[in-house]
Amino acid sequence: MQKLGTHVLVELWQADPVQLDDLEWVRRGLLQAAAAARCTVVGQAFHRYAPQGVSGVVVVAESHISVHTWPEHGYAAIDIFTCGERSLPEAAAQHLIAYSGAKRHFMQVLDRGIPGPG
Amino acid sequence: MQKLGTHVLVELWQADPVQLDDLEWVRRGLLQAAAAARCTVVGQAFHRYAPQGVSGVVVVAESHISVHTWPEHGYAAIDIFTCGERSLPEAAAQHLIAYSGAKRHFMQVLDRGIPGPG
Repeated sequence: MQKLGTHVLVELWQADPVQLDDLEWVRRGLLQAAAAARCTVVGQAFHRYAPQGVSGVVVVAESHISVHTWPEHGYAAIDIFTCGERSLPEAAAQHLIAYSGAKRHFMQVLDRGIPGPG
Repeated sequence: MQKLGTHVLVELWQADPVQLDDLEWVRRGLLQAAAAARCTVVGQAFHRYAPQGVSGVVVVAESHISVHTWPEHGYAAIDIFTCGERSLPEAAAQHLIAYSGAKRHFMQVLDRGIPGPG
């Protein structure tokens, strides 16, 4: 058995604060990212904070995609967790990087569910 | 500015397959974990797969807690993402480790939203 899941973590910096604070903009981006990853959305939960910031998660048949935004820092934290060989988590990440227009980003890819070290 | 968020990743192994396949058992564990972390639940989404496995996410006012289970491997992948100095993500992790009765676990703690490298 190899890994069970792939977990892509993305830090977005210098993104537009107005967009990062717009729940519907965030939701649209996550749903598009799920499609880019070839994932099927089966649930979602979004929340807008006072005074600012949005959290959103879409549960997909292949795991989840989440985002948390800090408009005041032009920052968003993205997680894309997928299982199965058909899904394309990096494509979801690339979509969100482009969608956000973030001027800087940092991405790391982690394997999840590897029997050895766990 | 220091980090904006703390991201705790937990691998649970040798957990009970029947419990891992029980959506309500998973939901109860996540809600208890949110309380242990001093987080306030603001949304949730759960899904049970066919033939087996559960995905669940609770969005909390301090970010999110997610779990994906593979009953056939006795495995669950947990993510606890929190912001703010008041929340206790490791307490949520410890709760889920104990709640699941997993015989083996592996935990790592990542900083998210550090301006330097991103």
